[in-house]
Amino acid sequence: MARAATPDPTALQQALVAAVGAGHVRNDAGPDHGAELLVLPASTAEVAAVVAIARVHGVSIVAQGGHTGLVGGCQSHPGQIVLSLARMALIEAIYPDERVAIVQAGVALEALQNAAIAHGLEPGIDLAARGTATIGGMVSTNAGGIMAHRYGVMRHRVLGLEAVLPDGTIYSDMTRVVKNTAGYDLKHLFIGAEGTLGIVTRVVIKLEPLPQCTATVMLGLPSVAATLEAINLALRSDAGHLRAAEGLWQSYIQLTAQAQGWSEPSFPLDQPVCLLLMLGGANQADLNEGIEQIFGEILDRHPTATGIIAASKRQEADLWRLREDTDQLYRAHAAAPSYDVSVPLSEIGAYVDHVKSGLARIDADLDPYVFGHLADGNLHIVLNRTGPLDDAMSSAVEHVLYANLRALGGSFSAEHGVGTKRIAALVATSDPVKFATMMRIKQALDPDQTLNPGKVLPSQPLAREKFQ
Amino acid sequence: MARAATPDPTALQQALVAAVGAGHVRNDAGPDHGAELLVLPASTAEVAAVVAIARVHGVSIVAQGGHTGLVGGCQSHPGQIVLSLARMALIEAIYPDERVAIVQAGVALEALQNAAIAHGLEPGIDLAARGTATIGGMVSTNAGGIMAHRYGVMRHRVLGLEAVLPDGTIYSDMTRVVKNTAGYDLKHLFIGAEGTLGIVTRVVIKLEPLPQCTATVMLGLPSVAATLEAINLALRSDAGHLRAAEGLWQSYIQLTAQAQGWSEPSFPLDQPVCLLLMLGGANQADLNEGIEQIFGEILDRHPTATGIIAASKRQEADLWRLREDTDQLYRAHAAAPSYDVSVPLSEIGAYVDHVKSGLARIDADLDPYVFGHLADGNLHIVLNRTGPLDDAMSSAVEHVLYANLRALGGSFSAEHGVGTKRIAALVATSDPVKFATMMRIKQALDPDQTLNPGKVLPSQPLAREKFQ
Repeated sequence: MARAATPDPTALQQALVAAVGAGHVRNDAGPDHGAELLVLPASTAEVAAVVAIARVHGVSIVAQGGHTGLVGGCQSHPGQIVLSLARMALIEAIYPDERVAIVQAGVALEALQNAAIAHGLEPGIDLAARGTATIGGMVSTNAGGIMAHRYGVMRHRVLGLEAVLPDGTIYSDMTRVVKNTAGYDLKHLFIGAEGTLGIVTRVVIKLEPLPQCTATVMLGLPSVAATLEAINLALRSDAGHLRAAEGLWQSYIQLTAQAQGWSEPSFPLDQPVCLLLMLGGANQADLNEGIEQIFGEILDRHPTATGIIAASKRQEADLWRLREDTDQLYRAHAAAPSYDVSVPLSEIGAYVDHVKSGLARIDADLDPYVFGHLADGNLHIVLNRTGPLDDAMSSAVEHVLYANLRALGGSFSAEHGVGTKRIAALVATSDPVKFATMMRIKQALDPDQTLNPGKVLPSQPLAREKFQ
Repeated sequence: MARAATPDPTALQQALVAAVGAGHVRNDAGPDHGAELLVLPASTAEVAAVVAIARVHGVSIVAQGGHTGLVGGCQSHPGQIVLSLARMALIEAIYPDERVAIVQAGVALEALQNAAIAHGLEPGIDLAARGTATIGGMVSTNAGGIMAHRYGVMRHRVLGLEAVLPDGTIYSDMTRVVKNTAGYDLKHLFIGAEGTLGIVTRVVIKLEPLPQCTATVMLGLPSVAATLEAINLALRSDAGHLRAAEGLWQSYIQLTAQAQGWSEPSFPLDQPVCLLLMLGGANQADLNEGIEQIFGEILDRHPTATGIIAASKRQEADLWRLREDTDQLYRAHAAAPSYDVSVPLSEIGAYVDHVKSGLARIDADLDPYVFGHLADGNLHIVLNRTGPLDDAMSSAVEHVLYANLRALGGSFSAEHGVGTKRIAALVATSDPVKFATMMRIKQALDPDQTLNPGKVLPSQPLAREKFQ
């Protein structure tokens, strides 16, 4: 295919208008975007046409979902095209007996959740940005959330997908079953690739039975080890299944509780770590009893433990708000530097100690807020600082957080991806063979850098500056 | 790297002996193998050394696990090296609190199951060849089995892996957590690739809590739709979780029951389809009650249904033997042609009708035995014929079974892989863009065809002879 030596903006825009219609090519890509062109195709065929046009004109494409990413994966610059999937927001089918849905990429998670509820089902994945995060974006970033310990991450929810490749062809694998050994399962190349290897246009997603009832306890515990004991008790409860197990370290719950005016005399906020446990099941009385059994067993083992069992749906919502209201952090510390790591469960206690002491060595006042998904080892760490940090400080902090993490079996990016913000960390900490293979795959599928260049991987190979 | 123009068998053998020791290079690769050389490395480094030697000598490598594959993925020919992982059979670690195990590739599934039981855990995957199938082989073939509806297939059990690439380098991703968005998740290239893109040497695998008790009912039902109703009732039971839901069509259960001398006056074998349901949980009385509730509810909806609830562990084992004793098929019909398809659950009834009528049109006496994993849509179909079929008959049968399967959202290979036996079906039925991308990936990672050439993909591109 011939590529224009010099981009011709007028001819490009005319071609795009011919492909998707005049109303769907805009000259303002919106805030946070440097690109001048926003294109809104309405079908996979139109997405393919846009990619083909981009290639002819020698410009690159940044695909856009719900714009809820946290690592700059959707950033664009002048000369690029932003391709929004917003007009592809159809829930095409739900098969209740199969527990499967087929959706276009632009469907918001909450829209799918609401459609599934009508069949007593749920997508098996949930996160705070549910109202705007799209299924296509969640596939492209391999989203995680609070139920990953039970149902896996987005990668494990996807049975099939359709994607437009960098050469403008359409990769079609709309498999509706979990078992498929018909050759290499290449859909996993597009899941978590942040739009750098293909643009996901349609998705077949597994659904799970939605429990009729839930019950929640918040435990105040002396150690991370005690939280793991409580999680194991919940996993083996015969009252229901563990839906969520969220950890709130002391400074985090103190901040959100104070901001929300929440207090409870029987639950002083002086424990090292709090654990929110939710069971789901078919019978409310059984769940309540199961929660009480867990609390009782924990009290037997750890007499200093405290706990609150939610006595109403309202109280349950109040407890969960203490965890989910992360905005309070950024009100207290504007643009506070935030990190998103995975740590093997049995290493969490030592890792948090290591981070606290390492940060204190950088600056005695530097103290992390720590919270996250304890049952899968995903910790969110936010610094008590106005951001962004300067380069030297940022590098020192990342060294403390990331240096030994891969050797431990963890990851410097649990669920937020790489985007632009974490490329340096990827380069510094990846297995060199894995990194080289990533570069080879990008080269094999997108040699002209048509799709989201400079995201996930550097456009040009960077020097590998190891943290250690 | 220089490759020998003409292989020098003596020099090759000497180099292999130097790499892995004289006792671990054998001149007999065993039955079913055409290769003259069997090499047994003891570590990932030794595997890498063998791959490097093979490249220098211009020979290719067939990796071997437990040798339980069904599609010829381990076949070899003179001039190749068979690389067995049998000496890499160490369970390196089990982390009970994380529900994670780290194993070498040559560990048998049953060995891991037994090690996990000591911690009240299980690998979340089970299949009849458990005694010999290895974890590395199960990763390389993306094994399925009876619990895939709940815990996914092998791909969903793997948190991390290490593999030797075709260029002899070692890809290391021993992640111990489920959330990892640190770039492309390329381990999925090696899972299900049947040793054509890398040789898997070590695996991090998720474990699940092992239920203390189980309860089983076998239902005789008037239709596939009724089996799906029963499965949905089991999925929503508050007594425990659904562990297995296996379908046995009439001619299959009649054959195994007769061969085993099994009969039960209250359960005549004249129903269109039988369903074996197993619940697992913490409380035997609850499970028994749950099973009875499901049976009762099914009887209310389908008065002609029949059922047997296992009253003892022995009776439970007897019921399961009716399903698992597939050898009886091959005693009745030597080398009977067998197929392994995935069908979306709501299409199973119509698909089986289509297969039966299509086969009868080929030959009025041709009748399939049908059985399999109903909760995930994986049907095993075995013909009442001595095999193998001649080419014309084989092609006619495959046309009936496969022609429309991908469009339905199913797959011509559910859990057995492609190997050599299903390459023609892959070529004939794949999405052309997916097929071309597979070829491109093989070319990018193994341009010299060092690893298992001619498996999964044709060595040379084949003409695409579409079934329709």
